[in-house]
This record gives sequence, structure tokens and C-alpha cells, in this order.
Amino acid sequence: MNTLGKLLTLTTFGESHGPAIGGVLDGFPSGITVDTEYVRECMQRRRPGQSTVTTGRQEKDEVEFLSGLLDGVSTGTPIAFIIRNTDQHSSDYDELKDLFRPSHADYAWEQRYGIRDWRGGGRSSARVTAPICVAGALAMLAFRKLVPSLEITAFTSQIGPYSTNPENDMDYTTAMAESNAVRCPDGQLAAQMEGYIKELRKEQDSIGGCVTCIVRGLPAGIGNPVFDKLEASLAKAMLGINAAKGFEYGDGFASALQRGSEHNDAFRMENGQIGTATNHSGGIQGGISNGQPIRFRVAFKPTPTIGKEQQTVTRDGKETVMAAKGRHDPCVVPRAVPVVESLTALVLLDQYLSSK
Amino acid sequence: MNTLGKLLTLTTFGESHGPAIGGVLDGFPSGITVDTEYVRECMQRRRPGQSTVTTGRQEKDEVEFLSGLLDGVSTGTPIAFIIRNTDQHSSDYDELKDLFRPSHADYAWEQRYGIRDWRGGGRSSARVTAPICVAGALAMLAFRKLVPSLEITAFTSQIGPYSTNPENDMDYTTAMAESNAVRCPDGQLAAQMEGYIKELRKEQDSIGGCVTCIVRGLPAGIGNPVFDKLEASLAKAMLGINAAKGFEYGDGFASALQRGSEHNDAFRMENGQIGTATNHSGGIQGGISNGQPIRFRVAFKPTPTIGKEQQTVTRDGKETVMAAKGRHDPCVVPRAVPVVESLTALVLLDQYLSSK
Amino acid sequence: MNTLGKLLTLTTFGESHGPAIGGVLDGFPSGITVDTEYVRECMQRRRPGQSTVTTGRQEKDEVEFLSGLLDGVSTGTPIAFIIRNTDQHSSDYDELKDLFRPSHADYAWEQRYGIRDWRGGGRSSARVTAPICVAGALAMLAFRKLVPSLEITAFTSQIGPYSTNPENDMDYTTAMAESNAVRCPDGQLAAQMEGYIKELRKEQDSIGGCVTCIVRGLPAGIGNPVFDKLEASLAKAMLGINAAKGFEYGDGFASALQRGSEHNDAFRMENGQIGTATNHSGGIQGGISNGQPIRFRVAFKPTPTIGKEQQTVTRDGKETVMAAKGRHDPCVVPRAVPVVESLTALVLLDQYLSSK
Amino acid sequence: MNTLGKLLTLTTFGESHGPAIGGVLDGFPSGITVDTEYVRECMQRRRPGQSTVTTGRQEKDEVEFLSGLLDGVSTGTPIAFIIRNTDQHSSDYDELKDLFRPSHADYAWEQRYGIRDWRGGGRSSARVTAPICVAGALAMLAFRKLVPSLEITAFTSQIGPYSTNPENDMDYTTAMAESNAVRCPDGQLAAQMEGYIKELRKEQDSIGGCVTCIVRGLPAGIGNPVFDKLEASLAKAMLGINAAKGFEYGDGFASALQRGSEHNDAFRMENGQIGTATNHSGGIQGGISNGQPIRFRVAFKPTPTIGKEQQTVTRDGKETVMAAKGRHDPCVVPRAVPVVESLTALVLLDQYLSSK
Repeated sequence: MNTLGKLLTLTTFGESHGPAIGGVLDGFPSGITVDTEYVRECMQRRRPGQSTVTTGRQEKDEVEFLSGLLDGVSTGTPIAFIIRNTDQHSSDYDELKDLFRPSHADYAWEQRYGIRDWRGGGRSSARVTAPICVAGALAMLAFRKLVPSLEITAFTSQIGPYSTNPENDMDYTTAMAESNAVRCPDGQLAAQMEGYIKELRKEQDSIGGCVTCIVRGLPAGIGNPVFDKLEASLAKAMLGINAAKGFEYGDGFASALQRGSEHNDAFRMENGQIGTATNHSGGIQGGISNGQPIRFRVAFKPTPTIGKEQQTVTRDGKETVMAAKGRHDPCVVPRAVPVVESLTALVLLDQYLSSK
Repeated sequence: MNTLGKLLTLTTFGESHGPAIGGVLDGFPSGITVDTEYVRECMQRRRPGQSTVTTGRQEKDEVEFLSGLLDGVSTGTPIAFIIRNTDQHSSDYDELKDLFRPSHADYAWEQRYGIRDWRGGGRSSARVTAPICVAGALAMLAFRKLVPSLEITAFTSQIGPYSTNPENDMDYTTAMAESNAVRCPDGQLAAQMEGYIKELRKEQDSIGGCVTCIVRGLPAGIGNPVFDKLEASLAKAMLGINAAKGFEYGDGFASALQRGSEHNDAFRMENGQIGTATNHSGGIQGGISNGQPIRFRVAFKPTPTIGKEQQTVTRDGKETVMAAKGRHDPCVVPRAVPVVESLTALVLLDQYLSSK
Repeated sequence: MNTLGKLLTLTTFGESHGPAIGGVLDGFPSGITVDTEYVRECMQRRRPGQSTVTTGRQEKDEVEFLSGLLDGVSTGTPIAFIIRNTDQHSSDYDELKDLFRPSHADYAWEQRYGIRDWRGGGRSSARVTAPICVAGALAMLAFRKLVPSLEITAFTSQIGPYSTNPENDMDYTTAMAESNAVRCPDGQLAAQMEGYIKELRKEQDSIGGCVTCIVRGLPAGIGNPVFDKLEASLAKAMLGINAAKGFEYGDGFASALQRGSEHNDAFRMENGQIGTATNHSGGIQGGISNGQPIRFRVAFKPTPTIGKEQQTVTRDGKETVMAAKGRHDPCVVPRAVPVVESLTALVLLDQYLSSK
Repeated sequence: MNTLGKLLTLTTFGESHGPAIGGVLDGFPSGITVDTEYVRECMQRRRPGQSTVTTGRQEKDEVEFLSGLLDGVSTGTPIAFIIRNTDQHSSDYDELKDLFRPSHADYAWEQRYGIRDWRGGGRSSARVTAPICVAGALAMLAFRKLVPSLEITAFTSQIGPYSTNPENDMDYTTAMAESNAVRCPDGQLAAQMEGYIKELRKEQDSIGGCVTCIVRGLPAGIGNPVFDKLEASLAKAMLGINAAKGFEYGDGFASALQRGSEHNDAFRMENGQIGTATNHSGGIQGGISNGQPIRFRVAFKPTPTIGKEQQTVTRDGKETVMAAKGRHDPCVVPRAVPVVESLTALVLLDQYLSSK
């Protein structure tokens, strides 16, 4: 249940306000040099508190590696790592003990397990994505050696009414996305998004959005039909991110409006290589990469935690009213960007290893 | 790779023009009475050639059960079944042997395996979804005993420019959807869709669309966070269907435009039970069912097989032109409806068994 | 439950007296030429009725391949195959419907599933090993291409009081084992075993025994610690064979009597290669092959089906007496030999594929 | 590779001389009260340095729980735990960096991964069984609630020439086994074993042995045929223990000498319940428990680390001589006892959860 992948498996653990969160990455190739500073930076990218647009919790996260490395080189044994939870003001959440927050996991989990860790969302907190970023960074380091051409770029493509034009998708770079707090590669749009988020914070409200991800340099022939298709594996991983509500690749939902004659990607020769004239397919055909860039988009709902008053019920079935206290993150999308990138790296490495 | 599920596993096999296709359903509960006529009907629903709007291939499919049943009752051992391929005019496909059809799996698969079964699409043919429908029917029979309240309704919600209004989703029934060839529960819209498809057939072109699925009666507490979330498992299963390009649940991509104050589903008491005032979440919160109807949508691209001329390349790298011969199905969406229903039943039964 | 392996998976199905038994082999490498006559011979080796020492049931088994092959070459898609059950005199077993045969699976299975296929042992019949032999033959064909040096030799090393001397293990060949009905490579011993079995048949009794298996030519470095160790995977596969009661590799249980100074295999140089002076380890150290021959032994209990009268109880809890009718196989060991070989090939190919 | 189980999964990690070892137990039932002191004691049982007969390394192990518990009660989320490595004198092992110790994993692992953690055996050290004991203790706590009748008793049944009589197996208790340093429930034999081990220590040599395990109180109907049989799952788990060379259940290898008429367990009525007159089967028939006590035995080779001089080769292929320095454990069997018990609890809980 808490394991992703087949040959390369990531098992994560930990609750928001327990002693620590972490993960075990098994099946990782041996002989990969692990630049721990790079891993730390990747993990830090997802943490909140980096700017005016994100949440107030200051996570001074440090990742500690417990196994699988010898003098900084992977040995082929499981790489375990933990991140201590330092900012554990459980008492902030005391009022949550006995009521169900609207559109949070509280009620469903209590129905499933008969018990739930109510402190800060417990295991359903966004904090559980930190170990994914650590593992994703390791996967990227493996690709540096195995497929140096591989490049994964994720960015914020929509926040509420502000969205990038998909036609520009291929022009955006990681550097452009990382140049601002909302991780939108279009600077002008980024400024509008920032302003919009600040306004929402004042209104004690939140907003949804989308992340787009582009993968360049993956060779053709990676994937495992029919149930472990590359796109199906990506979809599963992405829908596992907190607040994710949708996944589409290539032209996605827009394909529903297209004719075969416009959607089909004609094959042609390019410098002696077989390529396609267009890429409506998004780099995957029949579950397997075709050598063109992979392009997909993930939709996120607005953060359910808002300062406005909401109707809800208590555990013993009494209707009541609640309003989240403190400073909240009106939009999870910028923080989801590194998580999308990380899961992409993990899925691709797993599929790469089992396609060889 | 060809297995779906964890406790309840479906392994499928078979190529379009080999001797047979089929599946093995393992982990199926014992003591379930299997109405083979019902299973046959479920499988027949997906076959083409039923009406003027679908493809010309007449599949007179018969399912043969090979194991797992004693006097029509499941014994807990694997239920294997096969469907013979009778309409095997491989020679129709001779010209496909040496070229790659645009937006088909041909090229990617050949890069993966170094060889491909070119006859009628081989394993990437839509025909491979027939075993899914057989297994899905078995899963529905199991639910009749385990969760009699469960009801799964899938229907065509979009074909090209014609689409139903999501606000009516909850009013549609399986009977309404099955009353016409395009499986759209809105009769007027269905007529327009049929006319549109006929037109496209004349133009030798194809069109994309969407299937919407509603699940009623699933109790709260079914699902397995964090990587095997209910929605993630559904997404993976749906993206495994041929031509699927996107998945969204609840308000899906529309959530990107919503504020928390409009998206959140307030809890309230309903006849002594905890329920929600709205269902933007689509019946799942934090990966687990919350007792409200599950609602999701799957996008499909237009059938890549079209009669119009297309640019492509041969296996030895020469640019050429091709046009698919014969009568083709301009829209796979109506045929995808029973596949969506079947995969939903399989995913839910697997999650149900592992949540108990 | 009915699936063996990780990257290379074999899912089997079928009951003794249902329509058919069979299997699906997934993850099999593409581009392997499948000599179906060889596969048929491998499967025939395990069938009873070949000689005076085995059971009377004449299984005229024919294997039919349903998928995964194109012009006799594997395509990388699942290879499904079935073997029809032709000798289905279920009525022979009518008396078994309502009682539990001693030391058969009848009682335990009914406790597990609440229902059981009582006809000829159903899914717990020795007949279910036939699909294993088909799949094992395919694995051996894959090794012919991938590791041509690989050679798997299994033979009967014990039947009741007659047993080979382990010191001769490395001298035996498949040809020697296959030269007689009991599959014992020592001709003199084989004659004694045959005589002994004939005597037991007259006495309406049965006898246990052992199979020894030697693998030559597997390169060093194959295996997956710590829980999927090569020896652990072999042990699991072997204990899955009907009537298997024990597994040991290298010096096995005899190691309990040894000192480190006698058991340890000293490393030494052999023609510029690292080898060991002895092979008490049985070719595996720390879960991974070390390049020396792999050697293991499997113990089998006597066939539980005997003609002698036995005490038992009926399904409704009445004590009674039963005696199996007809002609029975007093010793399963010779028939287990090809099953041991087949499972070895499957386990090694799976581990080989995931160790690369 | 480093994960055991299906519904209940244990993933372990860690090297002997890395920062920590540990594990993640996923799929553990919610609502189980975890007595951490009990867990600590279970883990301490396997640690060396407890008496004159075991190794000199003083492991002051403390287990730290990182997740999955709320106020000492399991929540259904992964339970992660770590044990810090405190006694890390890596320099003691410097000489091992460039040579392969006979009958250790050194050479095979280096062939597999191209690199190995040479410090104290790295991941192939016996120390990696500590997390198994922690997880096993948790499984036993779950059984206290789920199947209070369950009782698992493992003990040393053989050390070199000294062995218990299998006929007494059912008379031994955990208290008897734990009353002496070698964990042999026969006090007189225990004294002889202790004396023998002391002698071997003087001789700088080591010795093999066996552990027997008895499970009482498991209900009939637990197990998953045909490849995940209860005995096959136990065999796999046991062969995963360091130095294990064999597994047998019920009459095991002795069955090879028996006739059906002596081996078969006649069914009879006992206080209105169906039982068996004998238990040659060892409590399992056809892969599923039959309600009788489960009985199996595991063989261990002598510790490969000995003080005597041994021939070996260096990594660059030069023949040399080595002798392990320091104080070594001449017999791993007493320390394997709690590991056998723990793995048994884990396998049974996993099978129990998937049989319901």
C-alpha cells in the first residue's frame, strides 16, 4: 500500500507530527555516486515557507541516509533515509481530534481504520511527499549515469484563472520555472499568480491549479503493456499526490474533440532517425515511449484547509462550524511541482530497468 | 506486466489474430454463483458490429470457462477463460508488416521487443479488452453477494463536440445509456452523436470522446493509501485502456479553477448518518471512499485507424503514404463504456477485499 | 496465489477434472525460438502411465499455445497455453464427495474455501504440475540463447530405503536418469527401486523419496538478497510441489554436524578464475550464485492415495473407513523429477532477468 | 528484494556498520496496542553477547519507532523503526576490504553489484535479522488480539552431534528453551551443547545445528495454494535467514523412508471436532493449515567466521591465507531461535490476513 514501483520500489512512512518521515528505496542500481547536497536541495524545493506565497510552517528539514551507501556510492542494497519532524506543535490541532475537516481524509480514514492520527493530517499530510522528493533526486542521479540525455521539467501551468498556453510547453525550462515563487515559467503570468494568491490569503480562501511535466531524452522502447503501461504508471503515481484530481498526457482531454486526421502523429525521417511530425500522443504509444518528448498535466484541487468558516460534523455526529486557525497555504500547486518531477523520475527509472 | 490488481488479480493474454484471447482471474471469492449467460452478455456489449455506428468486424465471441467453477459456483481457485479468435484474416494486414501506422503502437513496441505481431494490432488491438469484460462481469457477480447496494453506471458523455452536462450525471442510468448505439443516456444528444459518426465514416475519419462512470452504494472506508489510493488504482486501470488519454475524478480538471470555499464538501447529518452536502470530491477523500457516489471521467483519443491517406515510414526507414483499408470504427468511445465499467468493478473488488 | 516469480511470472490454473489446465507465462524475453516439439516432450516426461512403475491413468496430453508467439518466436507478450483434460471419469470419485481422504488437501481446503472440487483432487491434483513443465521447457529454451552453458539435471536420489551416494552427485547426467522408469542415474539402484515399487503396488501401499538437482554453468552474481535470495526462491518453488516435505541445498541438514573448518569452501585460482576448492555451499553464498554448481535436494512424502483401508471421517462428522479404488501410483518421485527441473529453470530465469 | 510478504509486508534495510538498521512494516492491522517493552525484549533476545557461549560484540540495541503508532496503538499506516549501530569499529575489518572470506557472501555479492560494503559483512551480516525480530514481535502482538490461542515455540534442537529427540517436540515450551544460553529445552543436553561450544571456541572453530519450531492454536483454513502455500512461504522465509541450509516440515526428509500406510494421518472425531490421530503432515495439507500443530525444522551451517587459518584469494586474484581476528560466535543457532519465531509470526499473520 505504501510502496510504489516494481523493480525499483519506494516505500514511504511517517506522519506529519510523529518522530520522523522517511522512505526506503530498494532496487536502486549499484555504483551510482550520490551527491547528498543535490538530494537535500531537491527535497528543500518542496518545503513550504520559502516565500510570501506559501504556508508559514518553517520546515528546517534535514535528510539523514541510514543505509545503502558506501563512501557516497550506492551498493545495490536498500537506501533508507529519514527526515525528523521538528515543528511538532500537536496541540495546535487539538480541536481536530473530534471533528472531521471538510474535504480532508479525516472521515474516510476513520471509516477505514477505526482510528486516525489527527495531528496535522497525520499520514495524509502534504508533508509525506518529502520522502518522494528525496527518492526522486536519487532516481535523477541514476539517470545522469544511465541516460545522460534525460531531462525532466515540471512547472506550474495553471493557478485558478491564470494559465500558460500549452503551445509554449516545449519552450519552458526548469530555470525559468524556478525563477519565481509560484514556479510558473512565464514571468508575467507568475506575477499575476503571486498577486492572486496573496489576495486569496487575505480572503482566508484557497485555489486549485495544474502542473505540466515535460520529459526529454527518454529513448524509445521504455514501458510495459498492457496493465503497467508507461502512461498508466505515471497516472497512478500522480493521482497518489495529495489533492490531485486529474491526469492527462499528450493532448489529453482535448483529444475528445479531435479527429484522427488531426490527432495522428505522422512518422517521418529526421537525420536518419524515425520521428514524428507532431506529438499529440505525448511521447507514448501503446504504453511504450516512442522517443518523442513525454508531456502530461496533473490537476490539483484547492487546499481544503481554509480560514473561512465551514459546516462540518463531530465524531459523535453533531453538526458544527469550524475555521482553520493560523496561516495556511492558499495553493499547493507550486509545492507539487518538485513532487511531480520526483515521481516522474521514479516511474521512469522503474520502467527503464524492467524494459532492458 | 499483464496483471492487474493485488489480492484479486486479472492476468490477460492473447493477440488479435492468434488462436485465442483470455484471462485468469485469481483471488476471486469462493461460493459465488456464476451466471455464465450474464457474463456472456457483458462481454458481448463491448464487441463491435452491433450497429451502424461501429466497425464491420463481426466478432461472434463465445467465452469458455476452463477452471475455478464447480457446478457454476466459484471454488476460490483461478478462473481461467478463453475466447477463440474466429475472424482471422491476417492477410488483410499484410501491408502492415513492414510499416508503422501513425499513432499506433507499432513503432514503440518494435523498439521495445525487437519484434511485433503486426496482424491486426496484435496485443495492442482493442480486442484485448474482451477478457477484461469477462472478468469485470465476474466481479459484479461477486458484489451482488458481498455489497448488493453497489451499482456501476458508465456512459458516453462526449463524442467530439457533443457532450452531456456534468450536472445531469447523477440522473443517468445504465438502461438509458444502453438504449442507443452510442451509449449516451441523453436520447437527443445520442441521435446527434450517431449522425456525426456516420458523417465521419463517410469522410474516412475518426473522432475522440469521453466516458463518465458513476458508482453508487460503495460503503465508506474502502481504499489503500498512500500509493494504492482508490483514485490512483482507478486511474491506472483506466489509462490502461487502448486510446485513453486522461482521467479525472470528482470535479477533476475543473477543480483547478475553484476556490476551497466552493470546492470543499461540507459534512452534515443525513438520517443519522454522516454525509456531505455536495460531492465535488467524487466520493473519495485521501484515497479512501467516503460513502458518497464515486464519479470519474476518462478521455479517449480518436481511433488512429482512418481511411484517409497518411504520411508514415517503413521499417527500413523509407517515407511512404498509407490509408487503412476496409470499414473502420470512427469512434471507440461507445465500445469503451463496458470496459470502463468492468475495470471499475475489478478495481473496487480488489480494494474491497484488501480493505476488510 | 497462483503466480510464481517477479519479472518472469507463471500463473497456472485448472483442476484435474475440469475442462482444461494451463498457464500464462509473462515477462518471457522476446526473440526466443520456441521448439514446440521440445516443449511437448518436456511435458510428456511428467505424465503418468509411461511404465509399469507409475499410475494407470493414461494422459494423452497435448499442449496448445494460445498467444505470445509469432511464427514460433516469442514476442514478449504473455505466452498462454492449455492442456485439455480428456480422461475425466469424475464418477470414479463420487465417493470422495462427502469424505476427507487422509493426508490429502480435502479437509484443509474445505476449511479455507467452504467448497472444494472433489473430482480427482481438483486443483490439488498432481496434474496441476503439467503447466509448470510446459513453462519450464520455455525457460530452458530461453537459457539456450541467454546462457548456453546452463545445464539442469534432476534425478531420483532416494526411494524409501534405496538412495544414491551424494558423493556421486556430480557424475550423474540427465541421460543416465532418463534411461530407466524411476529416473535414478545409478542403473543397479534403479532396478532395486523398480522392484520395490512393484512390491508396494501389490501391497496397495506407497513410498516416499527424494529428488536431487544439479545446475551447472550458471554465472556468479545471480540472486536477490535478502528476502528473495536464490536459495529462498528455490525453496519456495520446491515446497510448492505436491507432496514435497523438505528442501536443502549444498550440504543441507548434514551441515548441522559440520565444523566451520570442514564446511567452509576455500577460494582458489583456477585458470585465472576465482573458484572454490570444495562446494559445501552448493553454489550459493549470501543468496547469490558464486559460479560453482548449484546442488539441492527435495524430499517427498509417500503418495497419500493407497489401496489399503484407512480410518477417516465424513463431511458431516461421522467416522468411517475408506480404501482408494483402482490402480495408484505408489511413488510420485520419478514424476516429480521433471517438475523440479522445470521450477529450477523458471526460478533461475526470473532471478537472472532481475539480476542484470 | 528486501521485502517479505504480500498483504503484510516487511521491508528491511541497513548494513552492519552503517548509521542504522531498521524496517518498515506495512499492512499491519489498526487498533493493536503495541507494548514497546515487549518488542524491545524480543529484539534483545537475538543479540549476541548475552552469555559465555555467544560472540563478544556488545550490542546495546535500542529500537526507535518512527511512525504508525498513536499513543501506543497501531493506526494502519506503516510502522517504521530503526536501531542505531553503535559499535562501529570498521577499522577492525580493514583487511577484509581486498579479500574474499571463504563461505561468506563477499565474492558472490561483488559479482552481483560490482561493489560491496566490506565492513563487518555489510548487509549480509547476521545483524540484519534484528529488524525481523522487531517486526515479528509486532506480529505476535497482533495475534494476541486476532487469534489469542496462537503460540509459537522455537528452540535449538541440534548443535553438532547433540540433538533432541523429535518425539519430544510437543513437550517443549518457550520457558524451557529460554532457561539456558543455547536455547535447548532439554537441560541436560543444553549443558553438553554449552560445553561443546566452549571447546570449539578454544579451537577457533565453529559448528552447525538446527532450530525446531512448533505452532499451536492456528485454526484450520489458513494458506494460499498453489504457489503461496503456507509451507512454501515458511520455507522461503527460513531460507532467507543467514546460514540456513535446509527446511523441512512435518516428518520432512524422514518421509522419504515412510510408506503411505504409516505416514498418512487418519482423520477422527475429537470432542465433536475433526482432528487427526497422528501429525506426520506437520499441520499443513495442500498448502493450508488443518488445525493440527505446525512443526518444522531449519538447518544452519557452521558460522563461516573462524579463527583458524584458511586459504582464500584477494580481489585482484592472488591466493593468500587469512584468519579471522577477535572473538567469534562458534554457533549461530541459539541466536537464530528468535529469528525463526519472528519470521513464523510474520508469515502466519500475512497468510492469516489474506485467507480471511
